Amino acid sequence: MFYFIIDLLGTIAFAISGVLVAMEKKLDMFGVLIIAFVTAVGGGTLRDLLIGSTPVFWMRDYSYISIIIGTVIFAVLFAKHLHNFRKTLLLFDAIGIGLFTMVGIEKGLAYDLLPIICIALGTITACFGGVIRDILCNQIPAVFSKEIYATPCILGGIIYFVLIRLPFEDAYAYSIAITVIIVVRLLALRFGISLPNIYRNGNR
Amino acid sequence: MFYFIIDLLGTIAFAISGVLVAMEKKLDMFGVLIIAFVTAVGGGTLRDLLIGSTPVFWMRDYSYISIIIGTVIFAVLFAKHLHNFRKTLLLFDAIGIGLFTMVGIEKGLAYDLLPIICIALGTITACFGGVIRDILCNQIPAVFSKEIYATPCILGGIIYFVLIRLPFEDAYAYSIAITVIIVVRLLALRFGISLPNIYRNGNR
Amino acid sequence: MFYFIIDLLGTIAFAISGVLVAMEKKLDMFGVLIIAFVTAVGGGTLRDLLIGSTPVFWMRDYSYISIIIGTVIFAVLFAKHLHNFRKTLLLFDAIGIGLFTMVGIEKGLAYDLLPIICIALGTITACFGGVIRDILCNQIPAVFSKEIYATPCILGGIIYFVLIRLPFEDAYAYSIAITVIIVVRLLALRFGISLPNIYRNGNR
Repeated sequence: MFYFIIDLLGTIAFAISGVLVAMEKKLDMFGVLIIAFVTAVGGGTLRDLLIGSTPVFWMRDYSYISIIIGTVIFAVLFAKHLHNFRKTLLLFDAIGIGLFTMVGIEKGLAYDLLPIICIALGTITACFGGVIRDILCNQIPAVFSKEIYATPCILGGIIYFVLIRLPFEDAYAYSIAITVIIVVRLLALRFGISLPNIYRNGNR
Repeated sequence: MFYFIIDLLGTIAFAISGVLVAMEKKLDMFGVLIIAFVTAVGGGTLRDLLIGSTPVFWMRDYSYISIIIGTVIFAVLFAKHLHNFRKTLLLFDAIGIGLFTMVGIEKGLAYDLLPIICIALGTITACFGGVIRDILCNQIPAVFSKEIYATPCILGGIIYFVLIRLPFEDAYAYSIAITVIIVVRLLALRFGISLPNIYRNGNR
Repeated sequence: MFYFIIDLLGTIAFAISGVLVAMEKKLDMFGVLIIAFVTAVGGGTLRDLLIGSTPVFWMRDYSYISIIIGTVIFAVLFAKHLHNFRKTLLLFDAIGIGLFTMVGIEKGLAYDLLPIICIALGTITACFGGVIRDILCNQIPAVFSKEIYATPCILGGIIYFVLIRLPFEDAYAYSIAITVIIVVRLLALRFGISLPNIYRNGNR
């Protein structure tokens, strides 16, 4: 139940972020819906395709498609007021990437994949919805240059695999990893941290 | 036989639309071929990937790849004259999306998927070849902002699922749905209809 | 062993080409890593998805992900000096597309696909890493307009299928095809050959 609510909140936050980018690009109703959908489920879809878990997850469960359609209608109607909830949305989004990362890692483990591949799958689940959103909107994916977004996911994944090697209950390792992802993501947002610059001149 | 001819005409129309966009972008012969191919089979390919029907359909049937190569050679040779057939092409294209939508819906039903997912698969089959074409050509997909393209597919899909719940023969429901898609698409083209504007200021 | 070393060199060359494009776009460390990864394994991944060979190849073999991470760290550290090795990189890259084409063809044969589809799979394996790289970096894929890149792959594939129909040992046909691909690619680079212009005015 708790898990379900977090998944719900994460999906809603991702869908709204899709609506906002799509409306900035002046897409029509259908475009907004598709971008919202892709942002919310694109990462998990790519994960499912790569491991061969088909039909992909949202085809076997009504709830995703319904939640996203509902969210889009709501977000379009109240688009003007969404910026008031910007902080709430960023919080949901941070919770979303924490949970989605662990969902991806669990799925990788269920397919007996190596830890490094599981971490990659977790990161893909959390981050690639946004990547596909940006590609469809014809811009370089934000996660590749602007934001600390994937790093917390990778970090959380590493911590999870370290913890489950220790005499640690899986549920604790799971919770700690999610918490680390959310906290690191929020701290990066709060203090405007970005990855170390690999270019000579500072002006990126 | 009838079905085969329509599928053929739709594939040709889609491939030509790919050639036209690719030539506008001044791609070379290989680029034109790939864009034509992707426009014609991209939607069905994405559908097959999402439901796990692999190898994807055009790998198990010579005819698609041959038809598309033939179409591209023809279209490149007569590119100058293609604009004279613009209306014929739009008609083939409309027939194509009608048929492709129903092909996608049938495939979804064969995989026991829910009606809403089948309609999504039909729309993907009909519209996402054009989406991938536009992404490869580095422009925002036309179907997201400019044209009534997906809406007729969704509408036709809904009508199909309503009709087969009534005491209606499947073949009739199928034909009516295709007809609705084609007619709505042609009407939208004829009268320049677009989706209701969700933005304040009218200047999109 | 020999095969393994060529695969290694090809993967490294592809990864470095990804690093160079990503750094030109001023992506951050994570973006550079993803672009390098996608350039190196993207073609093979798309091939595996299309034929349904999942989990895709790099999920079942540590070595790719390790080699690529190592290459990226090295390439970022010595980015300034990479242009001194430009010719060596182009040579590795040519060797890479030769080998990758044949890997794709072999995989198609293992799935009992038609020769024309196998050649398509070979070309996808060799060229579509670069296509996905360019899409993620928001530019029209170079292989569609600027370079003779796919043509040698298609040519080599055709030669392979002609040779194995003659009383020819498979290993010879394989080696000749790879050699043709590499030589044609290098000649095209050396003499700046491009595909015949399909446009009226010469200024592309």
